Amino acid sequence: MSVMLSDLSHAVLAFRDERDWEQFHGLKHLIVSLCLEANEILELAQWKSDAEVDALPLSFEGREALSDECADVLAYLLLIADKAHIDLGIALHRKLIKNAQKYPVEKSHGRREKYLLL
Amino acid sequence: MSVMLSDLSHAVLAFRDERDWEQFHGLKHLIVSLCLEANEILELAQWKSDAEVDALPLSFEGREALSDECADVLAYLLLIADKAHIDLGIALHRKLIKNAQKYPVEKSHGRREKYLLL
Amino acid sequence: MSVMLSDLSHAVLAFRDERDWEQFHGLKHLIVSLCLEANEILELAQWKSDAEVDALPLSFEGREALSDECADVLAYLLLIADKAHIDLGIALHRKLIKNAQKYPVEKSHGRREKYLLL
Amino acid sequence: MSVMLSDLSHAVLAFRDERDWEQFHGLKHLIVSLCLEANEILELAQWKSDAEVDALPLSFEGREALSDECADVLAYLLLIADKAHIDLGIALHRKLIKNAQKYPVEKSHGRREKYLLL
Repeated sequence: MSVMLSDLSHAVLAFRDERDWEQFHGLKHLIVSLCLEANEILELAQWKSDAEVDALPLSFEGREALSDECADVLAYLLLIADKAHIDLGIALHRKLIKNAQKYPVEKSHGRREKYLLL
Repeated sequence: MSVMLSDLSHAVLAFRDERDWEQFHGLKHLIVSLCLEANEILELAQWKSDAEVDALPLSFEGREALSDECADVLAYLLLIADKAHIDLGIALHRKLIKNAQKYPVEKSHGRREKYLLL
Repeated sequence: MSVMLSDLSHAVLAFRDERDWEQFHGLKHLIVSLCLEANEILELAQWKSDAEVDALPLSFEGREALSDECADVLAYLLLIADKAHIDLGIALHRKLIKNAQKYPVEKSHGRREKYLLL
Repeated sequence: MSVMLSDLSHAVLAFRDERDWEQFHGLKHLIVSLCLEANEILELAQWKSDAEVDALPLSFEGREALSDECADVLAYLLLIADKAHIDLGIALHRKLIKNAQKYPVEKSHGRREKYLLL
């Protein structure tokens, strides 16, 4: 994880531009694709119990599949961020500050109902 | 975007651990939550035309909403990666190499049917 | 569409029971599968403009694909309803009454912002 | 469930037409909305164990919430079917025949891996 977010963004944008694909990347299309990729991660968990999903990354195949689908979600997230001029690092820090106000430590410690990292 | 992925990961994990929430973070729960957050981005595009979605980041409210939902997706992606011992930077580079083999530049340049960044 | 909802439910439950699959049909598993099937419909619309999606049912292949995915969503909806002892016909009528209160005709006629069939 | 699918369809279309909302119901919009509603069902299962989700319909509030979200999914499914000229009853029967060929009883009895009602 010792890589700059901007380096990952450049790699994805270079991949897109070498193929002249930006013309297909309307923001709504990217958002739909992000959802489809998130669901491909969910598909890896289909019909599996919580314990079976926890064990998924323990096999080589399971972790590779999970790794590939996570990469796809990240790729679309970077494409969306580029299109919308969002700095994902700043976005995350701002959101964590909002969440910290919504879920103060003293009220939400160890409590699932207070929880929900939304 | 000039931030290390590992710094973002640490921030999210610290938020989680201050609240003692890891106990709720089974991998399947995180995956379901990632999907729900991806759908919250999609909800911002509901009933809007492609052009209206492209214009979403041009308003302050639209960009803030998009930024917050993207941050949530990134947060869950980082939590999943931590749980599954996946390095998202390596995962993305490996996936781009796979995609480059699947969609060689000479065959997929400017072609939507060859495309699909899956 | 001149078929009873109960007949469709019986057909899906018979299919399940002939294969002794109820043992796998925890409610959460069915809900996850419903989402995955809904996303398979969305996948048919990926990278397509609004007009291209409107034209999808005009081709034999497009309509067959859409028909199959809609059938899958309906199948899981019927399985969920059976498991949760929900009568989908009553559920729909009750929900339309709630929606009618939320979106009275005089306030929501022709207005998209008032709208959202949620 | 002793109601004709066509009666439910008429009820949903009447609700739509009283509000003059068909103008907003491009097929892609309906598909996106179907996915969002499916995810609202999933949201009821977020952070809950399999057993907790199985118990959801046992409380009045849980069953009412589930019933409402299932109704929304059915409403959009009926709107999509109307727009695409799909008879959902025929679609389901055709799909079950396809699935029966894909998952013959003798090979898939009690076996999860052969399973997947897709």
